[in-house]
Amino acid sequence: MAPKTIIAVVGPDTQDQKLQDLAYDVGKAIAEAGYVLLTGGRSLGIMDYASKGAQSAGGLTVGALPGQDESEMSTAIDIPILTGMGSARNNVIALSGRVVVACGIGPGTAAELSLALKAGKHVVLLHCGGDAETFFRSLTPAQVHVASTAAEMLVLIRSVLSTK
Amino acid sequence: MAPKTIIAVVGPDTQDQKLQDLAYDVGKAIAEAGYVLLTGGRSLGIMDYASKGAQSAGGLTVGALPGQDESEMSTAIDIPILTGMGSARNNVIALSGRVVVACGIGPGTAAELSLALKAGKHVVLLHCGGDAETFFRSLTPAQVHVASTAAEMLVLIRSVLSTK
Amino acid sequence: MAPKTIIAVVGPDTQDQKLQDLAYDVGKAIAEAGYVLLTGGRSLGIMDYASKGAQSAGGLTVGALPGQDESEMSTAIDIPILTGMGSARNNVIALSGRVVVACGIGPGTAAELSLALKAGKHVVLLHCGGDAETFFRSLTPAQVHVASTAAEMLVLIRSVLSTK
Amino acid sequence: MAPKTIIAVVGPDTQDQKLQDLAYDVGKAIAEAGYVLLTGGRSLGIMDYASKGAQSAGGLTVGALPGQDESEMSTAIDIPILTGMGSARNNVIALSGRVVVACGIGPGTAAELSLALKAGKHVVLLHCGGDAETFFRSLTPAQVHVASTAAEMLVLIRSVLSTK
Repeated sequence: MAPKTIIAVVGPDTQDQKLQDLAYDVGKAIAEAGYVLLTGGRSLGIMDYASKGAQSAGGLTVGALPGQDESEMSTAIDIPILTGMGSARNNVIALSGRVVVACGIGPGTAAELSLALKAGKHVVLLHCGGDAETFFRSLTPAQVHVASTAAEMLVLIRSVLSTK
Repeated sequence: MAPKTIIAVVGPDTQDQKLQDLAYDVGKAIAEAGYVLLTGGRSLGIMDYASKGAQSAGGLTVGALPGQDESEMSTAIDIPILTGMGSARNNVIALSGRVVVACGIGPGTAAELSLALKAGKHVVLLHCGGDAETFFRSLTPAQVHVASTAAEMLVLIRSVLSTK
Repeated sequence: MAPKTIIAVVGPDTQDQKLQDLAYDVGKAIAEAGYVLLTGGRSLGIMDYASKGAQSAGGLTVGALPGQDESEMSTAIDIPILTGMGSARNNVIALSGRVVVACGIGPGTAAELSLALKAGKHVVLLHCGGDAETFFRSLTPAQVHVASTAAEMLVLIRSVLSTK
Repeated sequence: MAPKTIIAVVGPDTQDQKLQDLAYDVGKAIAEAGYVLLTGGRSLGIMDYASKGAQSAGGLTVGALPGQDESEMSTAIDIPILTGMGSARNNVIALSGRVVVACGIGPGTAAELSLALKAGKHVVLLHCGGDAETFFRSLTPAQVHVASTAAEMLVLIRSVLSTK
């Protein structure tokens, strides 16, 4: 039996309502398409809302947590992977996602995107801003895609997965 | 929604038929009890057979692989977590399993058991031999349990989980 | 006795002669100032030349290597730390350097800089290009500094260390 | 220039005076022999005393710390490597030591010894007790050595290094 296809969603610990709504839609779209959602697993910002969106559509959610226990975990994680390795767990997320999707930007998100690009992965940027788009495209242009909505993201993910 | 309960199964890359059969039964029993199985994910020995046993009962299998890709992965892994961190992934397995079960012993298995004990986890030893039983009991006696069969293991897991 | 002050130097596996010369000067300046140099330890590009520069001035060089052995190690590493954790070792470099200096840019370097900023560290960018400067400044402006030469870098490092 | 030879010393967070004295002698003997000492770097038990012993003989001490800062660090560490990866840093210690020496035993020490054996390293056990000696010898007999004193340990280290 082939393994499930995992899509990673990363993003900052933001309280911006628009970004949280976007993350919810992104998680929902990933679950509806039949993919497993992987996030950093915490009860904050993008990780939390993407997981809630995926669960709302009956999807499976995996959280690769930085800590050694479930104390900071989102309530919407089905499978907690307790890495105990802090920000080094960003590399686990970058490697385990077939595609890495960012909703918004911050230092941790930038690390995850950079590690994904280094591992040869495709990334999709949603609302990361022009500076981030310009920078990541300057590193590895063929691996960097930009979307404005969850629907556009899904088209890009399917396109990337079909050509692998 | 509460996260699923993850049970980790560890053991050597053995070709011993009896240990492989035991691992298959162990994986099957874990899945039948409704737990998610977590292993090191490779297509070798205990990891492989436990995952096959779990899938035979319709269970969900997670593999925390040492490498950066799926090249060494068991065919019975549903959710590949690519850690890219070699044997340091042993700590991810030790932390993420609510209980850690060993089928047989070897240096890697000994590391996983030791890290589990250090993290305060309960471990169940199946066919690890008297030297291992004596040693691990000398470290943290209250956390070390011994079983001979998958059925005995399940009784111990349920007992441990009910008292947490 | 107080621990030695460690300065991390990161950068791509470049064959660009100008960047290699810059890395050599950067390593030399760090050693002459009495700091320990930390790099990714491989025999490639910036890591290699910075280590050679530091050794030329009698400095101590530490390499946090991605692999499990010394097979890819620069000949100019005094203390090999074999992490065996691939690109996740980028976080070890980001955490262990009191300041993180980048000579040129690439996906791995971008990950190290991002992880350093996330950990609250100051970074110095040399010849990373305007896109990188604009992007990293957009993340955490107070932690990002730009220099053109090893001498300018040293002034920035001393300034940063004196205000901590 | 060849890299320095690193010897790792591991052991529990013990307050046993005899074990602490032994660790001090072990660290001192390693430094006097010209090796670099690597420990887990914390200000507790064996790590702390071995580092103090090494510094007393003018040796260089490296600490691979579990945390992200120097808050728990032994005062006798020259080069702090901040791994931020908790107990997974045990694998960094196991890989980076040319030989791994244990003074006393506990779950964390057992993990480090097991990971060292898995990586093909030789280990020297001092005052680990008969249960540990029997168990580790049952795993990989040719890699496990037992000593009673720092002087005996040094003979074993030299013998192991000369045959590599």
